[in-house]
Amino acid sequence: MFKTKMTELLNIQYPIMQGGMMWISKADMTAAVSNTGCLGTMTALSFPEPKDFAAEIKKVRSMTKNTFAVNVTLLPSFRKVNYDDYLDIIIGEGITVVETAGNNPERVIGRLKEAGIKVIHKCTTVRHSLRAQELGCDFISIDGYECAGHPGEDDVGGLVLIPAASDAMKVPIIASGGFSDGRGLIAALALGAEGINMGTRFMLTKECPIHQNVKDWLLNFQENDTMLLLRAYRNTERVARTPRAKQAFGMEKSGVPIEELRSIISGSKGQRMYELGIVDEGIITLGQCIGLIKDIPTTKELIDRIIAQATEIVNERLGKLVK
Amino acid sequence: MFKTKMTELLNIQYPIMQGGMMWISKADMTAAVSNTGCLGTMTALSFPEPKDFAAEIKKVRSMTKNTFAVNVTLLPSFRKVNYDDYLDIIIGEGITVVETAGNNPERVIGRLKEAGIKVIHKCTTVRHSLRAQELGCDFISIDGYECAGHPGEDDVGGLVLIPAASDAMKVPIIASGGFSDGRGLIAALALGAEGINMGTRFMLTKECPIHQNVKDWLLNFQENDTMLLLRAYRNTERVARTPRAKQAFGMEKSGVPIEELRSIISGSKGQRMYELGIVDEGIITLGQCIGLIKDIPTTKELIDRIIAQATEIVNERLGKLVK
Repeated sequence: MFKTKMTELLNIQYPIMQGGMMWISKADMTAAVSNTGCLGTMTALSFPEPKDFAAEIKKVRSMTKNTFAVNVTLLPSFRKVNYDDYLDIIIGEGITVVETAGNNPERVIGRLKEAGIKVIHKCTTVRHSLRAQELGCDFISIDGYECAGHPGEDDVGGLVLIPAASDAMKVPIIASGGFSDGRGLIAALALGAEGINMGTRFMLTKECPIHQNVKDWLLNFQENDTMLLLRAYRNTERVARTPRAKQAFGMEKSGVPIEELRSIISGSKGQRMYELGIVDEGIITLGQCIGLIKDIPTTKELIDRIIAQATEIVNERLGKLVK
Repeated sequence: MFKTKMTELLNIQYPIMQGGMMWISKADMTAAVSNTGCLGTMTALSFPEPKDFAAEIKKVRSMTKNTFAVNVTLLPSFRKVNYDDYLDIIIGEGITVVETAGNNPERVIGRLKEAGIKVIHKCTTVRHSLRAQELGCDFISIDGYECAGHPGEDDVGGLVLIPAASDAMKVPIIASGGFSDGRGLIAALALGAEGINMGTRFMLTKECPIHQNVKDWLLNFQENDTMLLLRAYRNTERVARTPRAKQAFGMEKSGVPIEELRSIISGSKGQRMYELGIVDEGIITLGQCIGLIKDIPTTKELIDRIIAQATEIVNERLGKLVK
């Protein structure tokens, strides 16, 4: 039994959510995670056509009876996305939990809250967390420096950022960035969070829909094998330190414009990487916890192991230390 | 009661050590920490004259009957320090615990181990930890990205680095960087460490011998108010983001040579800062956990509070979550 504000308010069994991952968070991954009693998450923007998004929700429903979330990433306004089309589907399909990401959920939160949907806003600073709380979010998912994808520009590690957010906020905190096992889960709960978000760890599961070559290749990465791209443009992204990523970094240093760099990075992440498994030319979003990941279990094996380890840490290790 | 390999092997009551801090880790600070049942640490190189170092050890002895450690920082070889002079005193005075810092303790570890001294080697990577273990160190103090002073060049946050080191090492791990309270202590123990090292938190105590102006000024810093200097020279140091530090960073960007920069940084840390409290021109080594620090208690009040909070987290919060 793991009962926290996260499990209670979201109606899940374990206080672990799978982070929204572009290309990856489709039906197989989402349903597999939700079937373990954790919170699987689909990414709306993985479906450029809203009708495909609606069909994928129905597919997840056919695969699990448990709660799952939808991630809605709020892109800079120059990227034209008609969010209302996605919100229509989310609300119409009876989704109960939405994860928003990006600095400001203002564009979508009104309609979500009106529909009674629980909103988890993911951000990287206490300042943005406070703003999201003011707007009415139910949870903050606070993403520390260790995380895959967008760590922001403040570079505060989770050991400090999680308690800082927990001190500042009234709404419950979900800890994100650097988590992959039962040790991390208990650390997060001790630091004041009500649960954890994991992305990188779920990439290395049997149900994750990336090519087997990519998973096998990722097993070789250590905790110091990630790097930051686009820092010069204050749009930082943590990726695996691959030859292609180093090449992109060189171009960044030499002043190649951001749109050109973004296009190179996106191109290196697409079909050739995820579907065809051509890793040599790939760039892949990756968190530092890759250094702790040594196998490719099923999601069920993974969650069973995390819960067993977490329980053992509390009942045996910590319970015996503190008398 | 807090019983870990750290408390048992070092003969202390609580698994917390005070990190060696240049200028700060003198008798008052060291004895105050050891008197709480934690491990106070003097820094040998705060005393350019070995005879002053010997006198300070005697002063600590007169102030506490408890165990205390001496930090020996191994500087690059071009800085001429006769380490044997310091080792003669450490061994002659019957010191039982030494913290070495720097990439390689090879120059001093032989004599320390022969004298039966427990050696804690502080470093920032798993690779250096393994090397120090091979050389015979008894503990590794692993210093994550959040830390004050020298975080190394790999930038791995403690949430990942601590379990990574714990997985790789046979000797026990002390977690360093980002720790300031009972939440952090339990997080570290959950992540696989046997205790924590704190520096920044001890700077904001009544017994810390820095000017009151400096302490009061530091209370205003948030978790994102630190910055890295000397990264361009791969000799990175985390300091408070002060006007003077930003000025030094600008000089670094414009290619000012490292020796000149080091001299500016050291000059900004010296007497005018620590003794006279002239903060406007100061640079000060600072960890990200400054954002969690809101007061200036005595060391005893601090440790009592940490232990009470840690105990409450285990017995109440975690104990009730996991049934």
